[in-house]
Amino acid sequence: MKTLKLILLTLLVVTVFSCQESTSEQKEVSEPVTEIRNDIEKVEPPNWWIDFKNKNVQLLVKHPSIGNATAKINYSGVSLVKTYQADSPNYLFLDLEISEAAKAGQFNITFKLKDGSELTQTYELKSREKSAEDFKGFNSSDAIYLITPDRFANAIPNNDSVEGLLQQGVNRTDDYARHGGDIQGITDHLDYIEDLGFTAVWPCPVVINDMPSGSYHGYAMTDFYKVDPRFGTLEEYRKLADDLRSRDMKLIMDQVANHCGLEHWWMKDLPFKDWVNYQENYEKNRDNWDHKSTKTSSHRRTTNQDLYASKSDYQEMADGWFVSGMPDLNQRNPFMANYIIQNSIWWVETLGLGGIRQDTYPYPDKTFMSDWAGSIMTEYPNFSIVGEEWSYNPLLIGYWQDGKKNKDGYKSNLKSTMDFAMQKHIVDALNEEESWDQGLVKMYEGLANDFAYASPKDIMAFLDNHDKSRVFTEFKGNIANTKMALSYLLMMPRIPQIYYGTEILMDDFDNPGDHGLIRTDFPGGWEGDSVNAFTGEGLSAEQKDMQSFLTKVLNYRKSSEAIHDGKTKHFAPENGIYVLARISENETVVHIINKNESPQELDLSRFEELELNGKSLKNIISRENITWSNSLKLSSKGSLILTTKF
Amino acid sequence: MKTLKLILLTLLVVTVFSCQESTSEQKEVSEPVTEIRNDIEKVEPPNWWIDFKNKNVQLLVKHPSIGNATAKINYSGVSLVKTYQADSPNYLFLDLEISEAAKAGQFNITFKLKDGSELTQTYELKSREKSAEDFKGFNSSDAIYLITPDRFANAIPNNDSVEGLLQQGVNRTDDYARHGGDIQGITDHLDYIEDLGFTAVWPCPVVINDMPSGSYHGYAMTDFYKVDPRFGTLEEYRKLADDLRSRDMKLIMDQVANHCGLEHWWMKDLPFKDWVNYQENYEKNRDNWDHKSTKTSSHRRTTNQDLYASKSDYQEMADGWFVSGMPDLNQRNPFMANYIIQNSIWWVETLGLGGIRQDTYPYPDKTFMSDWAGSIMTEYPNFSIVGEEWSYNPLLIGYWQDGKKNKDGYKSNLKSTMDFAMQKHIVDALNEEESWDQGLVKMYEGLANDFAYASPKDIMAFLDNHDKSRVFTEFKGNIANTKMALSYLLMMPRIPQIYYGTEILMDDFDNPGDHGLIRTDFPGGWEGDSVNAFTGEGLSAEQKDMQSFLTKVLNYRKSSEAIHDGKTKHFAPENGIYVLARISENETVVHIINKNESPQELDLSRFEELELNGKSLKNIISRENITWSNSLKLSSKGSLILTTKF
Repeated sequence: MKTLKLILLTLLVVTVFSCQESTSEQKEVSEPVTEIRNDIEKVEPPNWWIDFKNKNVQLLVKHPSIGNATAKINYSGVSLVKTYQADSPNYLFLDLEISEAAKAGQFNITFKLKDGSELTQTYELKSREKSAEDFKGFNSSDAIYLITPDRFANAIPNNDSVEGLLQQGVNRTDDYARHGGDIQGITDHLDYIEDLGFTAVWPCPVVINDMPSGSYHGYAMTDFYKVDPRFGTLEEYRKLADDLRSRDMKLIMDQVANHCGLEHWWMKDLPFKDWVNYQENYEKNRDNWDHKSTKTSSHRRTTNQDLYASKSDYQEMADGWFVSGMPDLNQRNPFMANYIIQNSIWWVETLGLGGIRQDTYPYPDKTFMSDWAGSIMTEYPNFSIVGEEWSYNPLLIGYWQDGKKNKDGYKSNLKSTMDFAMQKHIVDALNEEESWDQGLVKMYEGLANDFAYASPKDIMAFLDNHDKSRVFTEFKGNIANTKMALSYLLMMPRIPQIYYGTEILMDDFDNPGDHGLIRTDFPGGWEGDSVNAFTGEGLSAEQKDMQSFLTKVLNYRKSSEAIHDGKTKHFAPENGIYVLARISENETVVHIINKNESPQELDLSRFEELELNGKSLKNIISRENITWSNSLKLSSKGSLILTTKF
Repeated sequence: MKTLKLILLTLLVVTVFSCQESTSEQKEVSEPVTEIRNDIEKVEPPNWWIDFKNKNVQLLVKHPSIGNATAKINYSGVSLVKTYQADSPNYLFLDLEISEAAKAGQFNITFKLKDGSELTQTYELKSREKSAEDFKGFNSSDAIYLITPDRFANAIPNNDSVEGLLQQGVNRTDDYARHGGDIQGITDHLDYIEDLGFTAVWPCPVVINDMPSGSYHGYAMTDFYKVDPRFGTLEEYRKLADDLRSRDMKLIMDQVANHCGLEHWWMKDLPFKDWVNYQENYEKNRDNWDHKSTKTSSHRRTTNQDLYASKSDYQEMADGWFVSGMPDLNQRNPFMANYIIQNSIWWVETLGLGGIRQDTYPYPDKTFMSDWAGSIMTEYPNFSIVGEEWSYNPLLIGYWQDGKKNKDGYKSNLKSTMDFAMQKHIVDALNEEESWDQGLVKMYEGLANDFAYASPKDIMAFLDNHDKSRVFTEFKGNIANTKMALSYLLMMPRIPQIYYGTEILMDDFDNPGDHGLIRTDFPGGWEGDSVNAFTGEGLSAEQKDMQSFLTKVLNYRKSSEAIHDGKTKHFAPENGIYVLARISENETVVHIINKNESPQELDLSRFEELELNGKSLKNIISRENITWSNSLKLSSKGSLILTTKF
């Protein structure tokens, strides 16, 4: 049957190509594109692809009074399955089915409006550039460099301020203003990032935030399909992705499914009455909109898991707006659900992404989030998504990870979650004085909780990020603590993420935890900067030393199977010393933290089961060799990393 | 076949009974007991029963040079399957199989020693008094009264000090000395305990602790089969169990599988070289034994769950001695394993227990503990065991509960664990000032963790116990906080446990957390006490009020299906008010905590889903009725308990 259909279809197509005058009355045949017009205000996704597993795509079409139109498509292999009116007369939604027979190309969609007028929109189906399996997501072999794009490097000063946008100008003396960093600034410094030893880059969102203020951070998107022109163009974004790929590095896109910016274009004409949550309240108060009129989220995120949570509490958490400037999207509206899923897939396919970081993961409808992640993972089986649940409770962190057998049956489809718990444990462990239940035991017992996770090594670990005080500040400027924390982070069975500037001891001492300050400009990113961390010019000896330290650890890690996928074995801290080993068939890496201010002699008899007796090991920092025998000399306070592979 | 065998067996038995002179050469027939001698130093278990599911019992026989003896048993249905020599010549272990044909009765075990001499020991197989299903363990319909027997009531002053024991005398002015309380003291006051509303009693161990000091607490047992004569006799212990049962109340026995007391009889002649852990070290240092020569446990209990724990760390935790006066039993020795399991079953059967509380649960070999609990639950399918894991980490608490799907495949067989996590959350919640992440939210989010447990309502919850500072002290003498904590404890989906004296505000203010002080004498338990809490004589108004408060809540709870087994729904704390509801088909109980110092008007619109609008509810303390409508007046600081059932 299938073969027969295919032959008939081929015949039809051949027929069409040989007699291009055939009218649009002929069904199931491709109509040649005779005219490209851009009368239609919006059609989203702006293009789609052939050969996805999911054969359906839903187009949002926005145009005055388009809701009353009838639509027509004549393109071989593409059927217009259904059209839907919205609550607003200015939207029409089209369900297209793209069969396996469909070829890449452009075709017209014709709309006949109630007043008799006709509109034509050209739409493109592209060929896929890579196979689905080639979209390889980040994993425990990677180390991720997190960047706030506005604050990293300003390659194109021309795009710093763009006419017509709500926020104008740059002001580098104001931590909450735009500073001018851009996508090209990242692309220009990939050598630096790669040399440090990172294999993946996660820039905070570069999608447009046309907001009157705070537009630099990127989390208040006003058009989910548009790159912020102050960060660059879609082409520049693609180039960043391509350049990373050519280095065997991965680009992780920061996406937001929970909310948009208040100035999102659709907020002026919302397609459905339930497009955003608390929409009625918004429409009633829009003229005097401020934080008082906002129904903000209760932020009681435990209602996602709590078997006893009241419905009203869950609703107040999930439906409330994140802040007054970020309308909460209603993913229970099926058109919104499709919109978000398609938008994500559009970006993965357009950029050839190596992963997605999803913001505020517990806030959107959780059933939807499972569908969202599931839809992406179905198209890209080797992909990775990490969701942000800002919780120090391993129970919540574990709940969201794919493979966890949850009591309520929730299946997450999310490969990676974020390890806020270990972040806190590591900081506490090194800041606290040693005692029975304080100090290093916090890291040790924190890591011991891994038995609760479906896949610990797929969890993303970090010491700080764009929302948290910088680790050097958390350690009150203590370099030894910062080094111990970093090397531990890079040895753990995790996907490590490090925030830009950590390598040069960037801090927020002046106002710890202040968001604008955390996201300080990277020195050397702006022309005329007196210090240039890319070249080393003007850096202090401590900063250079930290760059060198991180470079050595990260570059060792890059090819260490033991760290990527090896077994983990650790020994309860004793006398301020904590030993962790990563073990693969041909490699053992031993990480030793000595928290004592003085050098120590470590008796090795306790570590017999590591089977290192008599073996030579190399210190990956000093490059010195030692022989593992009765005891080991440890320098004062710091970490020692030894490997059997050299 | 089975029928034929039964007929043949019956014939044989009839034959034997008709010709009692038959010699012992006849196999598989019962030999009448001709002589009862007590020459043998020890045979344990001291008796056994017919009709267990497990047909095997292993006898420990101790007597000089008995190791070389051959043993013989002639009793219908009982086979001596195997005998085992130990490392010490003075032990012999006998494996008996008790077939379904065995009848209750006494029989002789004859030992022929190498020197030709012969010894005979009478052994008894009893009939079981109750069916296996009738051993009903404690559950969420119960409320447990925990008692330190030495400190509750001294019914028999004659047994306060017993000649021949290592610790002599009583001294009520010394918190660490014996005070004279006994089993009969508990039995005498069951009216008091029952009237308060408790349905189960858990006395700390009353098995003998013949130790030179600290013998009052009971956790250093020196003979697992003997009641401490200072607490009373086995008959008195049985009477306590019987009297409780006749009131439809349960006796919970406190057992210890991890260790014994240093003066345990076997410490002078250990049967095997590996009977206790670090035995060689003990035997080398026994003459100068003190805490310095003890290999004590590292107490790093996370090694039980930690996938990364080193073998050496696990061993240091599990094999180390709890303290220098408590040798660590080696449950990997199969004879020790049998000994402990049989001892537990012996007590369950002898007393007709309503539950076991197992001490220091994570310390013995965890595979053994699973076998231990499994063996008991196999014999008594409706029984309950609660294990003590002193951890504030819900991951560890949950790990030990039967039904939890653990990553390492560990199956615990333990019905109940102890909720140290909620204990801390409740105390913190009420002590802390309210803020976004402090105060009542600790209780709320603590209870929200229940999704991690296999069966939350089977977990034992408490505010304090014999090892923890008393709750009134934790609350710095604040009665309102104490009441809120207690009523919340009694509303939670848990098995609540309350420590004796909580009802009269007993405290340890003078030295918070001091064990001896926590276990203060219950006033009225000793003749001549100037205050008598049993009669109310001399109690302050606050004490009487607390007795009355607890009596009302406990007695309501006793018959409340909603609290025992109902659904739980709670509402995130707002403005210092936290609402928790328990809901069954015919009953809704609403528990409201108002932490504010001033009366509050609570808007009820948020609680619509409780479907109480227009309904009458009764305040179970004041007995007043209210109608649930728009709002509810709350008195200043305290808890309000309303029910639809009256």
